[in-house]
This record gives sequence, structure tokens and C-alpha cells, in this order.
Amino acid sequence: MNIPSKLIEDAVTEISRLPGIGKKTALRLALHLLKQNPVHTEALALALTTMRNEVQYCSCCHNISDQELCSICQSNKRDGSLICVVEDIRDVLAIENTSQYQGKYHVLGGVISPLQGIGPEELKIESLITRIDQSREDSPISEVILALSATMEGDTTSFYLGKRLKDKNVKVSTIARGIPVGGELEYTDEVTLGRSILTRINYSSE
Amino acid sequence: MNIPSKLIEDAVTEISRLPGIGKKTALRLALHLLKQNPVHTEALALALTTMRNEVQYCSCCHNISDQELCSICQSNKRDGSLICVVEDIRDVLAIENTSQYQGKYHVLGGVISPLQGIGPEELKIESLITRIDQSREDSPISEVILALSATMEGDTTSFYLGKRLKDKNVKVSTIARGIPVGGELEYTDEVTLGRSILTRINYSSE
Repeated sequence: MNIPSKLIEDAVTEISRLPGIGKKTALRLALHLLKQNPVHTEALALALTTMRNEVQYCSCCHNISDQELCSICQSNKRDGSLICVVEDIRDVLAIENTSQYQGKYHVLGGVISPLQGIGPEELKIESLITRIDQSREDSPISEVILALSATMEGDTTSFYLGKRLKDKNVKVSTIARGIPVGGELEYTDEVTLGRSILTRINYSSE
Repeated sequence: MNIPSKLIEDAVTEISRLPGIGKKTALRLALHLLKQNPVHTEALALALTTMRNEVQYCSCCHNISDQELCSICQSNKRDGSLICVVEDIRDVLAIENTSQYQGKYHVLGGVISPLQGIGPEELKIESLITRIDQSREDSPISEVILALSATMEGDTTSFYLGKRLKDKNVKVSTIARGIPVGGELEYTDEVTLGRSILTRINYSSE
């Protein structure tokens, strides 16, 4: 594509660095901004830079927050003895949307992925261990729920965390894996179906 | 979606104003920027505002340009007697990509659309008439090619332009409409197929 303006070309290059946006979509977005009032572009640029420069992370659970402690960590309605370990902030939002969880969180900031050069020290794992250790006195953490993706990297991270938390005297659980609600048995992949038989739940006591 | 940060919420609101980007995608993009080095966000914001504030339009054909006249209008390799009338800048890029056209352009900036409140006076139609009138002396424009979309609005605009250019002593043509190259007759819609029979081309003289 031969864009007759260096300014637009620069904008297209920058926009197309975003995930899932190619050159063609980037050009469409740039031309859209050109058709709009300049205040819209100003507002967009300002919102992006302000967000990037001023956003904070909760010092306790590493969730996104506008304050030192996030609203979930601050809340005394949440059960502090339960910690749900997730990969990133979107997972917190997804779990919060279910309204089924009343404990607190710990955001790892990723999963162990040797291929992408992410080892345990890149993640907030030490901070989780410290958090559990420090909780002993006042309000001890009794259970750590590992809610990581059912991928190779997620499983590796769960396995690693399981080993690290072994002698910490906390219960470690992972979220259930099986056929999704509304899913038909016939169309479920073999691995999921196989696992869901092996990890079956006692129906009468459920 | 209950985002625990006002800063991110503002950014998501601004990003999701862009066409084709919903709240979920906007959040994904915002979180992507947060994971990257702040210089990327700065560069994106700067590129957008610079583009919006400094972009110029060619004073002759209204194409996007970094100078008073765009590179196509400046070029003496292009046939100045041919003008291709298009809706917007993306159409110029699309036609340039074909490498089949060596004339110049005229960008209308839209098509007549009463539903969206766009009348002929909102478009660069007067400037096209003036351009044809003024070309008489040195290098007269001999043909105006209407390359507008095959939609109701495009057809209305073509019809209006045809009427306005009637007594200007220039040939007015429109780009051919018919079955696309590689298209199968069986799957072509009735209107296109019907039209392509009515506007058939003499095969032996093609």
C-alpha cells in the first residue's frame, strides 16, 4: 500500500502494532479519525497516555487499581482466606462477572512459558508466597485456587505452584475441567471427555 | 464489565468509539498497551495527534497530501486530460494498486446521501466543475471517469454528476459493472447478471 502521506503512514504503522489489527484496518481507523472532529483524536491520545503513565497495580494482589490497594483487596466483604490465582486482569473480570466467587485474587501477570522466555521469576510468584507467609498471624489464607488456562503453559504453571505451595499448609485446588455447560457429549474433544470421566464427581454428594 | 480502574475505563471508552471495535476488543488493546513499554503508547498517541492536526489535502484533487499539491497532481508522467472521480482516499489507493490507471483523480469526500444529510454542496463537486472550466486553456480535461460504488448513493451521485457535466464538453464514463473476474455465473446475483447482459461488450472488437 502506497499511502501518499508520511503522517498517515506513521499513524497506520503505529496502529497496526496493536494485536489483531492489520494495515488495512489501521488505515480505515486513521481515515475515520481524519473525518471526525480533531477533539476526538485528542481525547483518544490523551486517554491512552494518561492510562499508560498513571495506572497503578494493587500492591497486594497486582490487580489494576487507581489506588495503592485495589477495591477487592480493600473490601471486608470478601473472604480473605481464599485466594484465586489468575494469569491476568481479564481473568479477574471474567470471574467477577460470574458473581460466584467471594474470595480475593492474585494476578501472576502471565504463565510460565519457556518458548517466550517467561520463567517463574518473571511472574508474581514470590509475592504470592510472601503473602501466604505473612497472612499467618492475623487472617490466615486457607485455600489457594489455581484458575489458570487449560493450556500447556497454564498446566506447567499450576504444577510449579503446586510444588512451591506443598509445605505451606494451605489447601491447593484447581478449577474444574470438563464438558462446558450446554456442551454436547458427542462434540466434546477426546482429551476433555477422557479427563472428565477420570475426574468425575460423586453425583449423590454434590 | 466492571473495570477496576477509571483510567482504563476512559481509555476503553475512547478506543471503542473507533468503527468496528467493541468494548471487549478495546479492553484487550488497552491491556496490551499496558504490558508494553510506555514509549509505544507515547508513539501511538503522538502519531495520531500529529496526523490529525497536520495532515493536508491536495488543493487540486483533495487527495491526502503532505504538501500543497499531492504527488499525483504534481507528476508530469500522469495524463492530465483524464480525471477519475472517486468517493474517498481509500478508492485512490485501491485504483493505484491496480497499476492500470495513468490519469489524475478527484476525491469527492463522500457520496450524495439524503439519509445521512449529505447533499451535493457537502462534496467537492463545485471544485470539480471549476477544475474542468479552468483546464480549458493550457491542458484541457477530455474525459471524466466516474468510479463510484455500485450502491444507491453512488448511482445517485453519478447521475447528478452526469447532469452537471452534460454541457461541459467532456466525455463522461463510468467504470464497468458486471461479474467479477473469477466469478461463477451461477452464483452471481440477478441484478448484476441482468445488467452485465444489457451492457455486454462486443467481443470481437474488445
